[in-house]
Amino acid sequence: MSIEYLAGNHRSLPGSPQPYFLAAGEGEHAKLFADTFTVLLSGDETDGQFGMFTNRCAVGDIIPTHSHADTHETFYIVEGLVRLFVELPDGEKTNRLLGQGDFGFVPAGAAHAYRVEKPSLILGAATGGFERFFQQMGMPVASAANDGEPYVPPYPRMQAAAEAHNMRFIPDARW
Amino acid sequence: MSIEYLAGNHRSLPGSPQPYFLAAGEGEHAKLFADTFTVLLSGDETDGQFGMFTNRCAVGDIIPTHSHADTHETFYIVEGLVRLFVELPDGEKTNRLLGQGDFGFVPAGAAHAYRVEKPSLILGAATGGFERFFQQMGMPVASAANDGEPYVPPYPRMQAAAEAHNMRFIPDARW
Repeated sequence: MSIEYLAGNHRSLPGSPQPYFLAAGEGEHAKLFADTFTVLLSGDETDGQFGMFTNRCAVGDIIPTHSHADTHETFYIVEGLVRLFVELPDGEKTNRLLGQGDFGFVPAGAAHAYRVEKPSLILGAATGGFERFFQQMGMPVASAANDGEPYVPPYPRMQAAAEAHNMRFIPDARW
Repeated sequence: MSIEYLAGNHRSLPGSPQPYFLAAGEGEHAKLFADTFTVLLSGDETDGQFGMFTNRCAVGDIIPTHSHADTHETFYIVEGLVRLFVELPDGEKTNRLLGQGDFGFVPAGAAHAYRVEKPSLILGAATGGFERFFQQMGMPVASAANDGEPYVPPYPRMQAAAEAHNMRFIPDARW
């Protein structure tokens, strides 16, 4: 794995609004903790409107509570079982166990977390630009398969990626 | 089915950026030709950025060639088999048979068409507002199940919906 690869030259999407196809498992892949994220579409292709990504994820601990002030995010469960936790505008905390075909919406600014309860494939669409977060915080990898060891980013890398997406972590949240 | 229902009061999504969940099969449903579209998320929830919908579709004739000047559109195949036809910027025509997990991107302005080759479930994300097209051209229905007779809209309804989304039909396209 070269420095150039780490510096972002692993990008394979067109980078401008033009037609393309991806076979299942194609896209831009990054390992983050125990999950493998694959970018299918970036804000570069949609005039910044939205991006899309999949997350092939293992059963694991809860993903820490966070919010992103500028990013609307969705969770569509292609397969598996994921519990999504989200704070409502009045401060009430709620959660839902999402199975195949279920959907969750987390608007910009809402604190949320999730816990994968069975190995899952999540499809997400989100405000354009956010789809790069997983590459920025995680480690680019060659495949969508969720194999290999978990990747735990060094703290400065985590911090830089979070700051780039106006993300706030809420470590003391209780669900 | 009341006039109010036809007039748009069948809407069930929040209409503003707030968290929500949908179980599989929930959302706002509309029958259009032989397909049933279900809106999971609208531009009203995303500050106009993007919407999401599913299309539960039967094997059928090719969906006529069209373009929408303001709308980026995606096709993620949850199940089934769909051939997506799209015109490239240089005028070349291409197509791809998309199966489970495959993805196609059609940017704003690109002429495209598709033909469902096996009963399919397509998940689409698109520029905010476009997700209402299927309700506007189609007939609101109570369920995501793709049962009942096909709905063929009267021509003025088709024309009004197409105009509302800056859509152009290209009846003489050959793929």
